[in-house]
Amino acid sequence: MLVHTIDEVREQVRNWKKQGLTVGLVPTMGALHAGHKSLIDKSVSKCDKTVVSVFVNPIQFCPGEDLDKYPRTLDADEKLCTDAGVDLVFAPNPKEMYGDVNIMSNDFLTYVIPPFFYVNKLCGKSRVGHFDGVCTVVNKLFNIVQPDFAFFGEKDRQQLIILKKMVKDLNIPVEIIPCPIVREDSGLALSSRNKYLSPEDKVNALALSKILFNIKACYNKGITDVEALTETAYSYLTERHSLEYLEFRDADDLEEKTVADDNTIVFIALKIGDVRLIDNIAL
Amino acid sequence: MLVHTIDEVREQVRNWKKQGLTVGLVPTMGALHAGHKSLIDKSVSKCDKTVVSVFVNPIQFCPGEDLDKYPRTLDADEKLCTDAGVDLVFAPNPKEMYGDVNIMSNDFLTYVIPPFFYVNKLCGKSRVGHFDGVCTVVNKLFNIVQPDFAFFGEKDRQQLIILKKMVKDLNIPVEIIPCPIVREDSGLALSSRNKYLSPEDKVNALALSKILFNIKACYNKGITDVEALTETAYSYLTERHSLEYLEFRDADDLEEKTVADDNTIVFIALKIGDVRLIDNIAL
Repeated sequence: MLVHTIDEVREQVRNWKKQGLTVGLVPTMGALHAGHKSLIDKSVSKCDKTVVSVFVNPIQFCPGEDLDKYPRTLDADEKLCTDAGVDLVFAPNPKEMYGDVNIMSNDFLTYVIPPFFYVNKLCGKSRVGHFDGVCTVVNKLFNIVQPDFAFFGEKDRQQLIILKKMVKDLNIPVEIIPCPIVREDSGLALSSRNKYLSPEDKVNALALSKILFNIKACYNKGITDVEALTETAYSYLTERHSLEYLEFRDADDLEEKTVADDNTIVFIALKIGDVRLIDNIAL
Repeated sequence: MLVHTIDEVREQVRNWKKQGLTVGLVPTMGALHAGHKSLIDKSVSKCDKTVVSVFVNPIQFCPGEDLDKYPRTLDADEKLCTDAGVDLVFAPNPKEMYGDVNIMSNDFLTYVIPPFFYVNKLCGKSRVGHFDGVCTVVNKLFNIVQPDFAFFGEKDRQQLIILKKMVKDLNIPVEIIPCPIVREDSGLALSSRNKYLSPEDKVNALALSKILFNIKACYNKGITDVEALTETAYSYLTERHSLEYLEFRDADDLEEKTVADDNTIVFIALKIGDVRLIDNIAL
């Protein structure tokens, strides 16, 4: 069932809760692909009822980013959800979520702000305010749906760590379930933004996963020094790649690592032309 | 019943919710007086079960404020609650609420930040960060207790307006119930900080309510020009008073008024010696 208003969601969830049913939430920006599908499958198998939200959240886009051209494919999204056994698709418009408030500043809207230490690095460095927008909208969705479980992909690993921190810091009664990255056979991590890539650049995009897989293979052979582990990475990069970061950080608190261990995540972000891609791997 | 841990609260409330009972929350910093008692009475009469939280929240105190000397009277608070029919008193320590995180900056803690337009005036001007701390702790308490209703005094009117805005902006499933200011026969609004006043300064403190009552009387006679309404106020002030603000603002969005109407609140704050007092009145 597809609904567009907060009231409809609340009414449906209230009925489920009265029956003692558990509720899973999969928050998305739509343009659903097999990565989202894996989150949905996990929720459908774990929870009595599954809600998928489809909302391209304007306040998590920075000036100059792809808010207007971000892919919107609601009909296909709804079909994927129905086929996957989703019980409710919530697709509000920005006005339903934010009213008539000027939302692009904190002058007139209450924000949920993650800790500076978690956002002053990796994607947070170039996408200023992005995680404020993410935490605020996820907090809103949690309050609207009141799920028992919420499913997030490890593809957006910094987001996942920040949201887990938010849940802990604000005592939010929702359990966050991380879901593994889904990759094409080539190794490319699925992303709605892959649609922006030309066939040629899709090949260039393999550099991300190749770099990460190579680092993991070296780590598995016993190399732990981060400098040594990154040495060969640059050989995968061409003039077409503009590396934003390649960093080793703690899986819980994003502290930087100079020596890798089993609680280390390797994060990479780079641009191919105008398309910004991210990936990561746990060692 | 008095409990100190989040787990105990959650367990108790879960049992109540299973029975379909409604829950009211009265968040306090303790040092309970007849003002708090009126909030408690309202919750007890409106809700099946009432929770009172007693927590002197460090993150809503600014540097140099009275965090350390703020009155702590838990035994008396518990007795007042029991006598009033409260079902659960939740008195956590700071570690239970915030863990071992350094909470005095936003480096390591997720904050809920009210809109700048609502905090850049009145008490927010001198108490920088105060309402960030209030919104964050109230959000936490809402997530811990998950009440149907929460009761706040109109004494802290700017706080009340900011919390209503937070509930709306973040879609929090809690209804905020405002409760009228309780005054001594003299007119003095009850406050835990009145304990800091010498007998002489308690008389000086009557200036606040006298100014407000006088303005309201003039308004009721038909005067609406704010300049005219404030004219006589200064005659109530002596060398002992240090006026911080006397302002006319909209009851919903705190917009400044130059002409008073029925949706106007008159706000006053002043210091008597080291003691900062606030009061307000609706026209």
